[in-house]
Amino acid sequence: MKATGIVVEYNPLHNGHVYHAQQARNATNADVIIAVMSGNFLQRGEPSFVDKWTRTKMALASGVDIVFELPYRFATSNAPLFAQGAVELLDAVGCESFCFGSEDGNIEPFQNSLRLIDRHTVQYESAVKNAVAEGISYPMALNKAYKIIQAGHPEIPVADLSMPNNILGFHYMAAVQSIGSSMEAVTIKRMGAGYHDDTLDSQKIASATGIRKSFFSTETLDEVSDFIPQATRRLLIEWDAERKAFGNWDTFYPYLRYIILRDGPSRLRSIADVSEGIENLIFRAAQSHDSFQSFMDAVKSKRYTWTRIQRMLTHILTGFTKEMRSKMEKPSYLRLLGMTNEGRSYLSGRKKNLGLPLISKVASFSDPALKMDISASDIYALALGKGSDHSKIGLDYVTSPIMENHFSSKSFK
Amino acid sequence: MKATGIVVEYNPLHNGHVYHAQQARNATNADVIIAVMSGNFLQRGEPSFVDKWTRTKMALASGVDIVFELPYRFATSNAPLFAQGAVELLDAVGCESFCFGSEDGNIEPFQNSLRLIDRHTVQYESAVKNAVAEGISYPMALNKAYKIIQAGHPEIPVADLSMPNNILGFHYMAAVQSIGSSMEAVTIKRMGAGYHDDTLDSQKIASATGIRKSFFSTETLDEVSDFIPQATRRLLIEWDAERKAFGNWDTFYPYLRYIILRDGPSRLRSIADVSEGIENLIFRAAQSHDSFQSFMDAVKSKRYTWTRIQRMLTHILTGFTKEMRSKMEKPSYLRLLGMTNEGRSYLSGRKKNLGLPLISKVASFSDPALKMDISASDIYALALGKGSDHSKIGLDYVTSPIMENHFSSKSFK
Repeated sequence: MKATGIVVEYNPLHNGHVYHAQQARNATNADVIIAVMSGNFLQRGEPSFVDKWTRTKMALASGVDIVFELPYRFATSNAPLFAQGAVELLDAVGCESFCFGSEDGNIEPFQNSLRLIDRHTVQYESAVKNAVAEGISYPMALNKAYKIIQAGHPEIPVADLSMPNNILGFHYMAAVQSIGSSMEAVTIKRMGAGYHDDTLDSQKIASATGIRKSFFSTETLDEVSDFIPQATRRLLIEWDAERKAFGNWDTFYPYLRYIILRDGPSRLRSIADVSEGIENLIFRAAQSHDSFQSFMDAVKSKRYTWTRIQRMLTHILTGFTKEMRSKMEKPSYLRLLGMTNEGRSYLSGRKKNLGLPLISKVASFSDPALKMDISASDIYALALGKGSDHSKIGLDYVTSPIMENHFSSKSFK
Repeated sequence: MKATGIVVEYNPLHNGHVYHAQQARNATNADVIIAVMSGNFLQRGEPSFVDKWTRTKMALASGVDIVFELPYRFATSNAPLFAQGAVELLDAVGCESFCFGSEDGNIEPFQNSLRLIDRHTVQYESAVKNAVAEGISYPMALNKAYKIIQAGHPEIPVADLSMPNNILGFHYMAAVQSIGSSMEAVTIKRMGAGYHDDTLDSQKIASATGIRKSFFSTETLDEVSDFIPQATRRLLIEWDAERKAFGNWDTFYPYLRYIILRDGPSRLRSIADVSEGIENLIFRAAQSHDSFQSFMDAVKSKRYTWTRIQRMLTHILTGFTKEMRSKMEKPSYLRLLGMTNEGRSYLSGRKKNLGLPLISKVASFSDPALKMDISASDIYALALGKGSDHSKIGLDYVTSPIMENHFSSKSFK
């Protein structure tokens, strides 16, 4: 059986994601689509809208056959490390190719970009260093250095690495190259926010950010129903009925503020991504700001992107220290969140050929990165619980991988 | 002017406390009564019912002239250190005597007990050691050792050190002796729980514990109104109207549980009072228990008293580590919470003769123990705030010492 990998967050899963999974399958002629998905905290440094099991159900109902959890350590990292973690998992599970959505939509410019930077490593790295020294953010510095290299070769068509999905795609490909994987890279043009295409089974596409925004401002799914599959809609309604709260920083702010006040600058300094000096700013902002928005307004600066700051805050919330991170250089397990019948057949066939241990039950495996995933999951559940309703702690120990097959979920629609 | 010191928690202040302040004044012929009062976390290892400023107002309306805050480091310590901190403050502010309530009610038996233990230090300490090795709690071990010494001298009348107020009284006197203070010790018989004395201005006396229990079970002050002064009643009603929550562990448990899950056993081990091994028990109990009561049922053991465990939990909640504590051996300031006109006259007269710096504004003084008091205050306010109402952070910086005089508060009654 032929497997193609994708890297997802599904926050929440919408029509654009269904399209991506379909296109990935078609473009690579795959038997199964394997998704590596972030857990309850995401790459932009924020809690997920609904938890990882609910998002796994969305995935299995929408064209994905197997969902693995991208460990917290990689899921909440910058683009290069996020990409490295995801690619190592897809490679370990035996994907022949992987497919990412990009603004560009063609693979050649990415290959050209990779080669170009490879050939000018020294020049590139010193340009990055100079740009960082000017006080701009790291992603902007990367892009500036890239443009300097690019200017020397105007004849080569390269990817525009100022676009967020192009950046991730570039780093997936760089990771494939750096680990020496034989996976083939495929890209499809991303159907993004505001892009409506009536040829896609008359379905409309909006970004996940837009969907969350609409939901938080209207408190109903009415305005977004056309943009999400039936299964997503049903799962969000079920979640709402049970939890009465969705994940965002507003909801988590009381806990974040508590831990900042409790730990103070000296202990905040030990937390991953907290760079020298900003711990004082964070502490002072927590002392005087009641809402997450006003807190962020006080913390943000030219030096750090909003995302970078949110990642620090995620690590503060979960207690993820620099020391802990230093012990998690590479992914060390394949944590199975769910699969369809097809996914199960694929895994049965490859059981003996997996590059990393397969984990269906967390209790049977001891690993610091897995412990962190479980802890992050508990903190998510606790902070999202209202009052004394904390019945969702320890779900990682009691939740079996979700089994669902395309047929039943399609018949549900 | 002649000052007499008392050590209080006022959680909340009731008729028995008014009686104590009156008797202290009469017995010592004092011009002013100076109270050293715990902040928002108390000696039994629990958050106070209402905050320190509200309790200061209760004090100033009920016969106390000056209230100093007993620093967190001492307020949440075992009896010997609690006593040491309190006595050093009273001595530093120039009290000629101090008066404690006790079950015994006579000072001679306490003096005898002190002398007895002094004369048999080696025997006493080895008996404590043996008793602890048997696996009983430390306070029980102290009492057992004391009884062994006592048995050798049946002719000497000594204090019964199995009674909670006698124990504290004994430690106040031991502290006075150990710091070489000239303060005279006075004790009055404590009017405790269930003890009704109609000769006391027809006022009834119930314990603070009983008052809180009645309040938490009935959610009104109806049943306790006869047992508290008018000022206490008014202040509790005002607090309720503004905060809609009173301090107890049930209210604080979501935050406690969060920090236990976040920090895990390895980091819990660095917290003050967390003794080897119990961090694992605490972590597992937090994973599986939804309420503070069931959590405590899972953690408690023969080895540790309930109070000892609650103190660990207080330090976990506030992030007070063994290392932080090791830098706070002695009180280093007199933090003024409030005073009457008489109290102000007294302090004006002694300004130049205080044994420790007097702090009216926390911003003007930098000290790790004071920083801890402020942090504990903020955590108390934050955890007690409902939802996003955290407007009470930083009160230490903006609240001036409370000024009230006996006349105005009496006229209010």
